[in-house]
Amino acid sequence: MLILSTWSFGQRANRAAWGTLTGGGPSLDAVEIACRDAESDLTNHTVGKGGRPDASGEVTLDASIMLSPAKCGAVACVRHFEHPISIARAVMEKSPHVLLAGDGAERFADALGFPRTNLLTDEMRREYEQWRATNPAAQPAIQPNIEEEQNRSHDTIGVLAIDANGTLAGGCTTSGLAYKLPGRVGDSPIIGHALYVEPGIGAAVTTGHGELVMSVCGAFLAVEKLRSGATPFEAGMEVLKRIQQTQALAEQDQVGIIVVKPDGTWDAASLRRGFKVAVKDPARDELIDPQSLV
Amino acid sequence: MLILSTWSFGQRANRAAWGTLTGGGPSLDAVEIACRDAESDLTNHTVGKGGRPDASGEVTLDASIMLSPAKCGAVACVRHFEHPISIARAVMEKSPHVLLAGDGAERFADALGFPRTNLLTDEMRREYEQWRATNPAAQPAIQPNIEEEQNRSHDTIGVLAIDANGTLAGGCTTSGLAYKLPGRVGDSPIIGHALYVEPGIGAAVTTGHGELVMSVCGAFLAVEKLRSGATPFEAGMEVLKRIQQTQALAEQDQVGIIVVKPDGTWDAASLRRGFKVAVKDPARDELIDPQSLV
Repeated sequence: MLILSTWSFGQRANRAAWGTLTGGGPSLDAVEIACRDAESDLTNHTVGKGGRPDASGEVTLDASIMLSPAKCGAVACVRHFEHPISIARAVMEKSPHVLLAGDGAERFADALGFPRTNLLTDEMRREYEQWRATNPAAQPAIQPNIEEEQNRSHDTIGVLAIDANGTLAGGCTTSGLAYKLPGRVGDSPIIGHALYVEPGIGAAVTTGHGELVMSVCGAFLAVEKLRSGATPFEAGMEVLKRIQQTQALAEQDQVGIIVVKPDGTWDAASLRRGFKVAVKDPARDELIDPQSLV
Repeated sequence: MLILSTWSFGQRANRAAWGTLTGGGPSLDAVEIACRDAESDLTNHTVGKGGRPDASGEVTLDASIMLSPAKCGAVACVRHFEHPISIARAVMEKSPHVLLAGDGAERFADALGFPRTNLLTDEMRREYEQWRATNPAAQPAIQPNIEEEQNRSHDTIGVLAIDANGTLAGGCTTSGLAYKLPGRVGDSPIIGHALYVEPGIGAAVTTGHGELVMSVCGAFLAVEKLRSGATPFEAGMEVLKRIQQTQALAEQDQVGIIVVKPDGTWDAASLRRGFKVAVKDPARDELIDPQSLV
């Protein structure tokens, strides 16, 4: 049994889900519970309720969940619902589709009885209004203030888990870039970008500057590298090197990746120092500083 | 110089774009022109204006365009605009993002001056009303009539081109599954799913049942296979085999893929017979029946 989550808030998420794993529950449930914990954490301003809004002041959420190529689901640009990870799971389990976006995803959630809620907290509204007041020239519909964007963290929570039966599952949930261009969708809800799980081969999850990951199908590439015999560390590093080789990186650009094999061996890596991985297994409950590429 | 498009309507699209290539224009322009041709063709009911609506009666469009991992853009779930391929190009050229979805993508298009139009033709409205009348029990927000879905073709147009300078580009545009669940996004607007282009390595584009392609990052996988030394035919077949190995296929499920190398060697393949590729180069203007896996 093992649960791995991105960033320091992943420790709280791991603990929330741990009882499910020790109780013999499936990794899919553990992943969903960990993501729901982050989504409900009002002090986490990059995921779910309490997340930062887009440039128009609206909080829009993205999430994905995956057991295998035949079992995966995701939602993008969903407003008004606290738990996009659970809507993503419903897309996987109750629709023939992989991805629902926008209004349609919200109507799907309504039809299934997911409760609507206000995602913008007073704290985040005040912070947004302050940003807006000091950035009156920013044209939300065209271009958010990029410098501002880069000063904010892009801290998606990504979770990978293995249950007592050895089944792998993964999930990912985010409110996206702070003050993003409305409608902007990053890597989190895209199968193979921020998340990929293949039984018998392994799984990967990414966090950081989504566009860099999207352009190289980061999580899928890591799992392809595992298939070719790479270790989890090598697989993660290959993804970071591919990003470095194919794209012009800004000084602040960060990508973190966690890669796990079905036997529970895992590792993580990041473009730059500063990435953290929360790991929980029967022997430990720790926060790790993975090796960085540069 | 070479331009390849999916399905028989690709011949018309190729011809529309050919003058751009022979005039020394960039492959990116040729790809955009070919896609715009399909988007404006009212007799093509799977792309752009004249496309079939979703289960709620609304036409929603997806498109992507790509030159390289550093230069790609896409839009998902866009209503009211005839040329999503051009909005995708604007996302690539005028935003720091890769993917915009829904309302936000529409506001982005408005801000750039793209004209709004009515996408639902009288013919498609009548056909939809007939479908709705004979499927009164279909719950659009939950589940479209799957059997009906499978009887409709999933005929995205995908285009790959090489210009006189040897530069590769690709594009993809669709109205998605007929009478789809509102908000459903397929492979077309996802980088690495329906479309991938990497200078020096090659490019791939897919069409067919999008969810099957999404689950294995089909176009990206094909380009990875080229990188490892596969021929375009082998690369395409590897993608189809991966789909066959990882997912339960229904009898009607179809996926077609075109793969091209920077030197202009190319091939195509499909899960089942029936896929067509329109090819135009200085020597020919033909419709090809690619080899199928089963």
